[in-house]
Amino acid sequence: MAEPIHAYAIKSAGGAFERFDYDPGPLGDDRVEVAVKYCGICHSDYSMARNVWGFTHYPLVAGHEVVGVVTQVGSAVKSLKPGQTVGLGWYSGSCLGCGQCMAGDHNLCQSVEPTIIGRHGGFADRVRCQAAWAVPLPDGVDQAKAGPLFCGGITVFNPLVQFDVRPTDRVGVIGIGGLGHLALQFLRAWGCEVAAFTSSDSKREEAMKLGAHHVINSRDDAQLAAARSSFDLILNTVDASMNWQLYIDCLAPRGRLHTVGAVGEPVSLAAFPMIGGQKSFSGSPLGSPATTAKMLAFAARHKIAPVVEMFPMAKINEAFAHFEAGKARYRIVLANE
Amino acid sequence: MAEPIHAYAIKSAGGAFERFDYDPGPLGDDRVEVAVKYCGICHSDYSMARNVWGFTHYPLVAGHEVVGVVTQVGSAVKSLKPGQTVGLGWYSGSCLGCGQCMAGDHNLCQSVEPTIIGRHGGFADRVRCQAAWAVPLPDGVDQAKAGPLFCGGITVFNPLVQFDVRPTDRVGVIGIGGLGHLALQFLRAWGCEVAAFTSSDSKREEAMKLGAHHVINSRDDAQLAAARSSFDLILNTVDASMNWQLYIDCLAPRGRLHTVGAVGEPVSLAAFPMIGGQKSFSGSPLGSPATTAKMLAFAARHKIAPVVEMFPMAKINEAFAHFEAGKARYRIVLANE
Repeated sequence: MAEPIHAYAIKSAGGAFERFDYDPGPLGDDRVEVAVKYCGICHSDYSMARNVWGFTHYPLVAGHEVVGVVTQVGSAVKSLKPGQTVGLGWYSGSCLGCGQCMAGDHNLCQSVEPTIIGRHGGFADRVRCQAAWAVPLPDGVDQAKAGPLFCGGITVFNPLVQFDVRPTDRVGVIGIGGLGHLALQFLRAWGCEVAAFTSSDSKREEAMKLGAHHVINSRDDAQLAAARSSFDLILNTVDASMNWQLYIDCLAPRGRLHTVGAVGEPVSLAAFPMIGGQKSFSGSPLGSPATTAKMLAFAARHKIAPVVEMFPMAKINEAFAHFEAGKARYRIVLANE
Repeated sequence: MAEPIHAYAIKSAGGAFERFDYDPGPLGDDRVEVAVKYCGICHSDYSMARNVWGFTHYPLVAGHEVVGVVTQVGSAVKSLKPGQTVGLGWYSGSCLGCGQCMAGDHNLCQSVEPTIIGRHGGFADRVRCQAAWAVPLPDGVDQAKAGPLFCGGITVFNPLVQFDVRPTDRVGVIGIGGLGHLALQFLRAWGCEVAAFTSSDSKREEAMKLGAHHVINSRDDAQLAAARSSFDLILNTVDASMNWQLYIDCLAPRGRLHTVGAVGEPVSLAAFPMIGGQKSFSGSPLGSPATTAKMLAFAARHKIAPVVEMFPMAKINEAFAHFEAGKARYRIVLANE
């Protein structure tokens, strides 16, 4: 029997985190085990903990923004060695053999394995994943802050690569939270003209510090009207429904409204403005391991890091309450002793 | 006073075409006058004639798939000479000075001028347009059949250029009518694997002749289920609402559902499948003059032509009734004597 993993689990949709030990079984030949040093709290941990999406199985060990040290590698693993510092995000495995995996799009593999669905995640002392999905941290990235890059960060970085965003583009970001505050930093470093759409005037100054050239109050019709036909890309990072048509109208010809926010209700779009302006609406998931490695190198070069609040892992319930109260600025990271 | 233009106009939403003469006034310095030899009947002529979109002004001289001979050029026109054979489509002018026009995207100019909105079109002996929008016919294009290329043709050709469709792509076309029958031909010549989605089994054989490798009955759930996750692009050419989600599900990862059909009702899309599969929904209008010229050269090289039924211009009401009865296979062209 393997050494038990000491984790924190939620046992029902309304429950708190409790100590939970489980036997991880033998280490798969393509797997690695990682001693968790840090793990961020992501909005998807909340959605899973509270069964917002309706498919949570309890007990749930959430946590999928892990930074840690490889402790064991499976018999077939050649890419990693014990002692290496790696990160792990929303995805922890893929088939490695399908057309998507073979083309480098492991994140689009039809049997991609999410870290906290049907298996246990990073709110624990150790976590396992496929070696391909444990991405080494380059020099220049602060380990304590890096966890959120592996989910929130790669989620907003991935579309810049996938949709060929250009440094000459005018780009807007909806929502200045865990994802949005990273998007502003990436886009500023990408060379773009950057606007932040936020309903909170209190975030104006911080948005400018994070990289926005302009801040548009998304509840102010006059400000939205002034932004008509001007954006090449609007990146939505929130998962609430909104007046999508307003943002379509803010797109320049050829513009794209792109969501990484997992909005529950269908998105309704009039066809005429899409046709007349050659506009697109799209979505994307987290990035592949290769894109994640690109992001880490870009973040290191441009000194981009999540803005985090640190809590000890043992205070996970306190940290989660802080998150649920909407007070996280902008990401919470739990640290193991 | 200029020589009156002898046209056919509709004077009310329920009306028939009647002879209608109008004075075109002095020829603008950037304009040309074209003697209409042929003019196709497009679905948009029907939408305008019957006021489906609610903004028709009567009397309406419809017709925007023109092939004819330049008879006069404005004082500033250097690109065309009387005697040249040209085509004219849905757009007849643009500002030529904005960022879109200067970038070659005249079709995305915010003040682009549609041929039959607020001005008179091609169901006439003559029609006028800006010289930039009268595109010369290359050798190898059959004049009698070419009219529909300037609206239906460029509408389905334009997205192949704009969205970088690759010869290795698997592409589906929804609707095998005036636009769809041209899309099948273009896509086959483009090198793609081509499927036709049609609700009409009677069009199966013709769709194969026009270029489809496969025909999928869009009312057969089993056939649609078998097509899941397989298309890089699905091009919708019809303007009726449909179960969009079914077609999103037929897209491979990174796939695009693109509409050129001017669907009236909003298009409703679940965000989750768009995000997980990195999928896009988009639209586009007709192409620029430069893309139209590319299309004509491509059509000439690949011997692509609309399948048309010819009627004399004087029998416009008979032709229109044939169209309204849904009997056109696949495009009607009116010929002046």
